[in-house]
Parts: sequence; structure tokens; C-alpha cells
Amino acid sequence: MHYPNGKKVVNNEKFLSKTNRKQEFSNRGMTLEEDINTANAYYRDTEKAIIHKKPTPIQVVNVHYPKRSAAVITEGYFKQPSTTDYNGIYRGKYIDFEAKETKNKTRFPLANIHAHQIRHMKSVAGHGGICFLILRFSAHEETYYLPAETLFQYWDDQFDGGRKSIRYETIRKEGYFLPFHYLARINYLAVIDKLYFQIGGE
Amino acid sequence: MHYPNGKKVVNNEKFLSKTNRKQEFSNRGMTLEEDINTANAYYRDTEKAIIHKKPTPIQVVNVHYPKRSAAVITEGYFKQPSTTDYNGIYRGKYIDFEAKETKNKTRFPLANIHAHQIRHMKSVAGHGGICFLILRFSAHEETYYLPAETLFQYWDDQFDGGRKSIRYETIRKEGYFLPFHYLARINYLAVIDKLYFQIGGE
Repeated sequence: MHYPNGKKVVNNEKFLSKTNRKQEFSNRGMTLEEDINTANAYYRDTEKAIIHKKPTPIQVVNVHYPKRSAAVITEGYFKQPSTTDYNGIYRGKYIDFEAKETKNKTRFPLANIHAHQIRHMKSVAGHGGICFLILRFSAHEETYYLPAETLFQYWDDQFDGGRKSIRYETIRKEGYFLPFHYLARINYLAVIDKLYFQIGGE
Repeated sequence: MHYPNGKKVVNNEKFLSKTNRKQEFSNRGMTLEEDINTANAYYRDTEKAIIHKKPTPIQVVNVHYPKRSAAVITEGYFKQPSTTDYNGIYRGKYIDFEAKETKNKTRFPLANIHAHQIRHMKSVAGHGGICFLILRFSAHEETYYLPAETLFQYWDDQFDGGRKSIRYETIRKEGYFLPFHYLARINYLAVIDKLYFQIGGE
């Protein structure tokens, strides 16, 4: 039973933007990135894990140095990340993951992930790291933990006549639903506890 | 015996800038960051480890979106990193380190490291990660691996009447000299092998 039980939890109202007030029984109003940052801050504060988002890589082309104030970047470009967005340590193990949000109701298009990210994730898995994807279907207000090994299977299949996406129904079955957690918002370490440390569970 | 044996290795000439050609028997001409990036690329290519430099954190304030070309950041500021610069996985263990270069001949001033970086490193060590500092005395053309635990000791001492720096002689004794390595340039994993995996040695 990896899929949600349909239960919703009251959101912390102060996090809700005006347009989302009416959806106060949902997790809406925060982006997936904000939710994961909240989880990571909670994990650090409670000394459960040390996991950070890597800064967005930027190619700095021009910098202006005004007198008596901070250097200003006047020309820069966003670069494509060569790795995943998040990594760190939990229970002594190396953790590495990517987070993706889709508005698509029926499937997660694999084009959302870059080939070099898959290469990186395969290397990490090969070195004994815990690697996964956090996936949000914003239309369903649902977030899932998808083990990297499952992702690799569908990724590789697309070059062998398979689909260019993973069906929503597949992710419900093969992923792990992440229910709203009051403090962490997205308590993804609970899935790692279950999968790798035989702690907790349903 | 952690200190150098005085042997120098011929540098790869193509890496040397014009002004440094005369120093072709040394490791000069490459910054510490370039050397570590070379080591990390070598480790990834040979599947020894997956270690990356984190991108420099930048606060993006203004972005211009020209038609038919890439978004241009027109105003941005360098932010102070809240963690160390490098992390990854080696032999299944989480690796986390910072690299610093000093022109000082006699000591490494502790002001080169930020309090929040020390906090981060202490957390990492507490969670069972392998944590250290790579330190280059550019005037001596010498690079050392300093275990985080040694760094913490001198860091904490400065608030208890101790020195605001670590002496060069202390680092020669308590750190591990990193000799020039033809492929990796700075083969810091060899020190980790010795300290944590009882592999290799002098």
C-alpha cells in the first residue's frame, strides 16, 4: 500500500498565499522546493540528518565592484546542473536525490530529467548511496518517493521501445506516498527508514 | 612522518600559464580549486569516488528574458556558503571537505574559515561522515590534508585563550602531506584510505 489514504491535514495558514486560502486543507501554496527545504531544516535542527539543496549553478560573466559596497554580478547565465539538487548524510549513509513537480495528471514525462542526472544517480547507486526521486503531481496534490532503481528501469525502457513517461498509476503502485507531515511537511526519511533500516512502516 | 620528502615532480607544461613557465618543476600555476577539480574528475572517470564542488551560491535579484535567447541575470550577489565546498561518496561513506589556500608562510589564520562552516563540519563528523580540510601553503608549494577533528581542536582553542591561527609547523606534524600525483594532482583519497580503511600507507 504505497498510495495515499485520502486524509488531508490542515495547512499552516501563514504559509498560504491569498489565492490559495480556499485550499487550506491541502499542501498547496508551497512549492515542492520550499517543502523539501522545510524538511531539510527540520532534519538539521533535530539532528536527524544533514541534507542541503545545492546552489543553482550560474555562469558569472561580468562583475561590477562598486566602491564601499558588495560586488554586483551584472551578467550571468543559468547553467544546467550536472548532478542532482540535494545531497547529504543520514544514519551514516550518503543520500542523493532530485525533486520534480509536474502539472500532468496522468503521467510523469521523463524529459523532466536530464541524461547526465541519470548517469550521476546510477554512479551514486553503484557506490552504495541511497538515491531517489521526489515527485509531485501538483494537480493531485500528491508527492511520492520513487527509488532510483525504479526510475532507472523506466528511463532505460524508453530507449528500448518503452514509454517516454511513467504513468501516474505506476508511481502510485511502485512509489511511496509522502503524506503531509506537520513539522517536516515532506517526511521522506521515513521511507528511507523503512526501505534501508527496517525501522517503522505501516 | 606526515611531512614532505622534498621531492618535486615535473608539472604538465600545458597547464602552466606564461608567467609560471619557469616554475615547471612545481605544482604552481594551478589554483587549489583547479587541482581538486582535476582530482574529482579523475576519481569519477575511474569510478573511485563521486565528489563534486558545489556551485557558488548567488542571490539572483534581476533576470532579463530576451526573445529567442537565454535568460540573462542582470543583477546578482555572491552569498556566503552555509556549508563546505565539496561533498560526495567514497567507498560507501559520506565525504565532506573545505579547501583553503594561504600565502602566509608561517601559519594558517583561522579567520579563513567561517563559524557556520565549522558548525556544518561538526554536524557531519557527528553523523559519521569523513570530514577534513585541504590546506595549501602557496609560498611553500605544499598541500596538506587536515582531519576535521584536528581543525576543531584549534578552532575551539582560539575562544579559550588560544592562537587565532594554526602554525605551519603544526600542520606539517598533525596534517598529512599531499604529494603531487600525476593523474589526480592531489590524491587526497589516499589519506582517507590510510586513516579510515587501513589501505596503503607509507
